[in-house]
Amino acid sequence: MKVLYPTLITLAILLPLPVYAQPEEGRPAPSNVPGQQYPYIYSDGRVTFQFKAPEAKRVQVVGRDGKNILGKKPIDLIRGEDGVWKVTTPPVPPGFHYYQLIVDGTPVNDPSSQTYFGWGQASSGLEVPDPQLDFYEAKSVPHGEVRLRWYHSRVTRELRRVYVYTPPGYDANTKRRYPVLYLQHGAGESERAWTEQGRANFILDNLIAVGKAKPMIVVMDNGYARKPNVPLPPDSWGIEAFEEVVTKDLVPLIDSTYRTIANRQYRAIAGLSMGGGQALQVGLNNLDKFAWVGGFSSFLKDFDVKTSYSGVFINTGNVNLQLRLLWLGCDTKDDFYIDNKNLHEALEKAGIKHVWVTGSGGHEWQVWRRYLYTFVPQLFHL
Amino acid sequence: MKVLYPTLITLAILLPLPVYAQPEEGRPAPSNVPGQQYPYIYSDGRVTFQFKAPEAKRVQVVGRDGKNILGKKPIDLIRGEDGVWKVTTPPVPPGFHYYQLIVDGTPVNDPSSQTYFGWGQASSGLEVPDPQLDFYEAKSVPHGEVRLRWYHSRVTRELRRVYVYTPPGYDANTKRRYPVLYLQHGAGESERAWTEQGRANFILDNLIAVGKAKPMIVVMDNGYARKPNVPLPPDSWGIEAFEEVVTKDLVPLIDSTYRTIANRQYRAIAGLSMGGGQALQVGLNNLDKFAWVGGFSSFLKDFDVKTSYSGVFINTGNVNLQLRLLWLGCDTKDDFYIDNKNLHEALEKAGIKHVWVTGSGGHEWQVWRRYLYTFVPQLFHL
Repeated sequence: MKVLYPTLITLAILLPLPVYAQPEEGRPAPSNVPGQQYPYIYSDGRVTFQFKAPEAKRVQVVGRDGKNILGKKPIDLIRGEDGVWKVTTPPVPPGFHYYQLIVDGTPVNDPSSQTYFGWGQASSGLEVPDPQLDFYEAKSVPHGEVRLRWYHSRVTRELRRVYVYTPPGYDANTKRRYPVLYLQHGAGESERAWTEQGRANFILDNLIAVGKAKPMIVVMDNGYARKPNVPLPPDSWGIEAFEEVVTKDLVPLIDSTYRTIANRQYRAIAGLSMGGGQALQVGLNNLDKFAWVGGFSSFLKDFDVKTSYSGVFINTGNVNLQLRLLWLGCDTKDDFYIDNKNLHEALEKAGIKHVWVTGSGGHEWQVWRRYLYTFVPQLFHL
Repeated sequence: MKVLYPTLITLAILLPLPVYAQPEEGRPAPSNVPGQQYPYIYSDGRVTFQFKAPEAKRVQVVGRDGKNILGKKPIDLIRGEDGVWKVTTPPVPPGFHYYQLIVDGTPVNDPSSQTYFGWGQASSGLEVPDPQLDFYEAKSVPHGEVRLRWYHSRVTRELRRVYVYTPPGYDANTKRRYPVLYLQHGAGESERAWTEQGRANFILDNLIAVGKAKPMIVVMDNGYARKPNVPLPPDSWGIEAFEEVVTKDLVPLIDSTYRTIANRQYRAIAGLSMGGGQALQVGLNNLDKFAWVGGFSSFLKDFDVKTSYSGVFINTGNVNLQLRLLWLGCDTKDDFYIDNKNLHEALEKAGIKHVWVTGSGGHEWQVWRRYLYTFVPQLFHL
């Protein structure tokens, strides 16, 4: 590689060279940009953050999870003589956590970490491995692809991008057709979230490798969709046209582009938080298209078993017949827990067959990874 | 969408609601995160940057291009009474530009812009549309896919990720086989760069749609590769094992996974900057695998027509026979211009057939988009 040894000062000084020496007790976070040593995770879960800001008066780190995984309050970094600020936090729970640095009161990204689209911006993320759990890690099993596909929406009249997971062997078995799971992200996130924050592709790879899940296509679209020149309601999230995008654009696109089994019995929809509310809405309003529906920590509003979802729950017998699976999950530390528990109890009272899963987690990605891992094996058994 | 109207204060205040009202003279940059109005680009190319930092004493914006497209010096933003800082810059040349905000001396990302992996971190990017050029824009033509594929490298003994562009119709024409272009990013960037910064997929879509380029597969891997437990040379960029990854891992993977024409006559390699140097090295050192080689603003070192690239240029007749195309491009404002011009003249003197392209640009993406658009139509004519 001789010809490539750097000589140009310009590049040499501007490019941070990878740091490979590491203390023994831990390792750089897997969410770091290549070669960056900090954030550094110790075997007991403590995390050392580092940030260079010679002119700053105060530097803090703070988590952005619903429950603020790094503690309720921002944690102060201590300034070193070289202008490099540093702090080691108490043990951080395993999983993916959005976080920010706060420099003299201004929230900024940590240049040492990869960014993940969340909270409506490219946010710093910290991945803390779990010594006990590896179902979402990349293992030495056959890997599927995640395909970026651009399509023109007749509903929003704009170019949209969808992420499509195709299972291992999809290109080799050119005759085989597959069921499809539509999987939605949360508010402030994007079509990238289930792959980058959620590791959905590795979760599917691992489940398929051991025969726990049927090989399937997973379609991850962007949940935001609005029609052109339609003024938004004052409290709108800009998602009004999503149901129409799914039914008029996306499902026809996927069924005409990939080797799907184009049949409600082989089509599922699920999502998390805002996307959970969307999955319930799109799925339950379109039982002619979906037979499997999952809501993960769903954002719900004023659920009424008689009127919600076009009154689908009024005819108990019919909905029990049509729905192969209605899966609801919400952990107890989640702000949405009560709403989801109420939904579960109302459905139970009304005799609507469904699965209710809870746990001790909050409104965060480690829970949603677990939900996906629990939900997917139950799909498409006929 | 009634069920989804937000009520939760927590989410409602944390999620920036999209801003749709816009002054008439311009539009938000296409590189903004959805709903963000700033950076805002006026029709004459002036750009307004905005950043909220009530406690900051000074906020500046600065470009990161080799030639610092926003001007040699950082530009000061002016503080508004609401603690929102703002400035409108002189016209910014069209294209993609890395940039930073500097808050009281500390470089930070602009939360209103998407991040693009460059300069060894997730960097803010500004896309300024060109009223005259649209060859790299998404047009209403058939779009190919960009596929994320994970593979285990026997050379680096780690999991690597490669981006693979498959042309429109790849899945439909299950019998057709395609030529392959291997395309490399620059130093401090990643396998994502040619898609996100370079728009390579749209450039190919557009060229293929009008018949200017043969439908081809484009393989965009990460240029960084080192063997485990091999101490790095002091001035190493950590790319020592890349040639071996291409020849031992990548080419066999691509040929066994996709419908390629597994033949040197249908295999090309090109790259920009560091990746240009890598393309020349890998291509010229492996003429049994590659017949088409392109170097865009290539990083070169001590070129010697007698010794460089395993002395491939000594046997002029053989290299002229073997190489279907040797394409070299570097614009005059590029720090690498002299090195590349010297390479061109040395090859000319030695009677090595090649194409030499230059222009008035610098070391930046708009130039590399143009090079790709010029280079690709010349490939695979036999």
